[in-house]
Amino acid sequence: MVNLTPNPSYSLTLQIELPNQAGSLASVTQAIAKVGGSLGQISLIDRNLKISRRELTVDAASEEHAQQIVIAIKALPDIKVLEVSDRTFDLHRGGKIEIVSRFPLASQSELAMAYTPGVGRICEAISHDRAQVFSLTIKSNTVAIVTDGSAVLGLGNLGPEAALPVMEGKAMLFKEFAGVDAFPICLATQDTDEIVATVKNIAPVFGGINLEDIAAPRCFEIERRLREKLNIPVFHDDQHGTAIVTLAALINALKLVGKPMEDVRIVINGAGAAGIAIARLLRQAGATDIWLCDSKGILSKTRTDLTPQKQEFAVEASGNLADAIKEADVFLGVSVPGVVTPQMVRSMAKDPIVFAMANPIPEIQPELVKNDVAVMATGRSDYPNQINNVLAFPGVFRGALDCRAKTFTDHMYLEAAKAIASLVHCGNLDREHIIPSVFDRRVATAVSAAVQQAARQDGVARQ
Amino acid sequence: MVNLTPNPSYSLTLQIELPNQAGSLASVTQAIAKVGGSLGQISLIDRNLKISRRELTVDAASEEHAQQIVIAIKALPDIKVLEVSDRTFDLHRGGKIEIVSRFPLASQSELAMAYTPGVGRICEAISHDRAQVFSLTIKSNTVAIVTDGSAVLGLGNLGPEAALPVMEGKAMLFKEFAGVDAFPICLATQDTDEIVATVKNIAPVFGGINLEDIAAPRCFEIERRLREKLNIPVFHDDQHGTAIVTLAALINALKLVGKPMEDVRIVINGAGAAGIAIARLLRQAGATDIWLCDSKGILSKTRTDLTPQKQEFAVEASGNLADAIKEADVFLGVSVPGVVTPQMVRSMAKDPIVFAMANPIPEIQPELVKNDVAVMATGRSDYPNQINNVLAFPGVFRGALDCRAKTFTDHMYLEAAKAIASLVHCGNLDREHIIPSVFDRRVATAVSAAVQQAARQDGVARQ
Repeated sequence: MVNLTPNPSYSLTLQIELPNQAGSLASVTQAIAKVGGSLGQISLIDRNLKISRRELTVDAASEEHAQQIVIAIKALPDIKVLEVSDRTFDLHRGGKIEIVSRFPLASQSELAMAYTPGVGRICEAISHDRAQVFSLTIKSNTVAIVTDGSAVLGLGNLGPEAALPVMEGKAMLFKEFAGVDAFPICLATQDTDEIVATVKNIAPVFGGINLEDIAAPRCFEIERRLREKLNIPVFHDDQHGTAIVTLAALINALKLVGKPMEDVRIVINGAGAAGIAIARLLRQAGATDIWLCDSKGILSKTRTDLTPQKQEFAVEASGNLADAIKEADVFLGVSVPGVVTPQMVRSMAKDPIVFAMANPIPEIQPELVKNDVAVMATGRSDYPNQINNVLAFPGVFRGALDCRAKTFTDHMYLEAAKAIASLVHCGNLDREHIIPSVFDRRVATAVSAAVQQAARQDGVARQ
Repeated sequence: MVNLTPNPSYSLTLQIELPNQAGSLASVTQAIAKVGGSLGQISLIDRNLKISRRELTVDAASEEHAQQIVIAIKALPDIKVLEVSDRTFDLHRGGKIEIVSRFPLASQSELAMAYTPGVGRICEAISHDRAQVFSLTIKSNTVAIVTDGSAVLGLGNLGPEAALPVMEGKAMLFKEFAGVDAFPICLATQDTDEIVATVKNIAPVFGGINLEDIAAPRCFEIERRLREKLNIPVFHDDQHGTAIVTLAALINALKLVGKPMEDVRIVINGAGAAGIAIARLLRQAGATDIWLCDSKGILSKTRTDLTPQKQEFAVEASGNLADAIKEADVFLGVSVPGVVTPQMVRSMAKDPIVFAMANPIPEIQPELVKNDVAVMATGRSDYPNQINNVLAFPGVFRGALDCRAKTFTDHMYLEAAKAIASLVHCGNLDREHIIPSVFDRRVATAVSAAVQQAARQDGVARQ
């Protein structure tokens, strides 16, 4: 087992009662430290001559660890634990998003304009000129986040209900980072035809479709067919979001080691939605030597078990991941925890670039190879160089909505990646800073502008 | 043509520049009054020694009338019209609702709880116990407002895009009156099978389905099949919302004239979704003598053109609307403007009750029969006794969501109607006050409580 550090996803709120005397809080903080908990906020709720009540937040590394922390505090003499609650669960109760009116509806005249009879005039205007739906309704700022729950995070096929919290989180990110209104559509079907028909049927309300957490290879066909049927842009974030941010980081990493994209050999481990999309976008960006591996090893021309998408990247070479990685310049992991060993990294070419993006546990823990790599990135926020899709999708949709794009083009994705990369200026670029922070507010704006410009060049912008 | 009074649905914002001297504003207000415009707000924007700029809002009776008003002002000497805009269109630009986060997402630790990796714990909790989707996501407070755009208000088959403004308005009302999060689903299909399949597929996110503006007789089958397939409540507002509020008003109107429900003869004109649903609910409420009419006259047993729903109410009598209405105690119109004449009303039994609910122009203008009726109601806000669905659907869904109802029962609708009626206390009940105002904040709460109690009695409440 990899030993995780405490983090907010396993944090607790504890309400405790302590004797109001010097040293009693110290005994609590020591107890927490001793079992490895990480203390956050400490607030004083109440105090009298004899006792004080305090609320603490404590990060743990796992649910078991959280329990250990509570047990350690309960074991202290004179300390009473009044209440323990899980902050992540607390945050989710009742859901994370809501639908609100953009203006008040408090008077008869507001009602007469926003609802009947006034709204009838708007309906008639749109029925006479359907394009007006973009200006007179929510359509031009609204995206559907569509999933069938078949590939939820790294957790697998959990179904539509269990996928909903992720989609709500995504909707928050859309709003927070790009002002986009996004609504979760979690489908009670995993049948390709039904998914396509359903999304087509609900499309009139939306200005764009963001597909999410749909398993490969089904996701490729669903995206392709929806792109054909709909006149609004369709984006599978697990593919293109990941590909855009990975390319952005790789552009800057290659700059650091002074190797051109055209010359490097790139190994991608994981040939699902993300791996295939990364490979495709890297080709568009000029990469020529890409080896994909799946759980059976290199996607070799000699293999007979490859899907059409995997065949696209079949190479002469064959062997396992260790064989592939030998002398490679770049390793990109979108697979599973722990499959890369330090020895494998040491077998790479000079100045190796390693993006171990499996979440939450990377293909190799960065600590193990920190002296062996030129650049290391992960999907995690607690290491440098976090490769996170949130750098891409908000700005990508902001741009597509603002120019009323009919569809997405590869060129739009490429420009989005370049825009993200360009925000790390030469002076700031170093091995621990190849990509902007997810909280860098410039990102969505820059991505949006780049996407719009590319859309206009490609003739897919309607405005 | 019926001469409509000015109302906010046709209101303008006018920016004008006037000489800064006594009498110049008076000339404008006189000109507006002369052509029949109704002045609202007058604000002073700017003033110097020579001129002042003001912004006026003016209600008109139609778009043509609005133009006449502008022309009349432009004809005044020394008055400049700087800007004219249509308030209803202004209000709709960019849509009327938005999706927002329920808490901020500004720090790494909030991100780690609301999104990855923390959200994965919530997904796993729901995948282990699917019922937790109600407490840990938006589901338990979220309703889909589903339409195929086939019967938009009284305007007909305008399609899904043109229906969207109505659904957005409805979402505002859901939030404003009952705190329910409602999201518009406007379908790009009018095929019954496809509608049923699509709604079934998107159901996991929702705690209830509100069908809206779907043409009869398709609406009956769609509702029936969805009720069978889904374990969340399904409500066709054009049917049940209208029926509940009509029944509520009729309960009080009958109290006023001292006639029991069992004894009155009721004529319903309009045998679409609303007419059929009203007839069904009135039967449940004890009515025994109901004659429905459609555009061809009384639904008579001798007719061979009746749908199964119309056959349910076929009677021995035959003839046209004038024949039906003769000696009737109650007339309920859910049909088209102007089909009832004063003579027809005068042919009714003593103390006639007339609900002329066609929108925006009723079956008969109330002024024409004000001395001939015991009680008159319409769908309009500018006459007394407005029969408006907004009295029902917010509270109905609030109640259903709060008790996690699996479905709706007729009993729940009946109790909702009684709850609305009961809010007009004996002392306040008079012919111009048979139903609460749409802005009466007690309504949704009372309806919600009644619906929950009935759901528990009927064994359909899960909580």
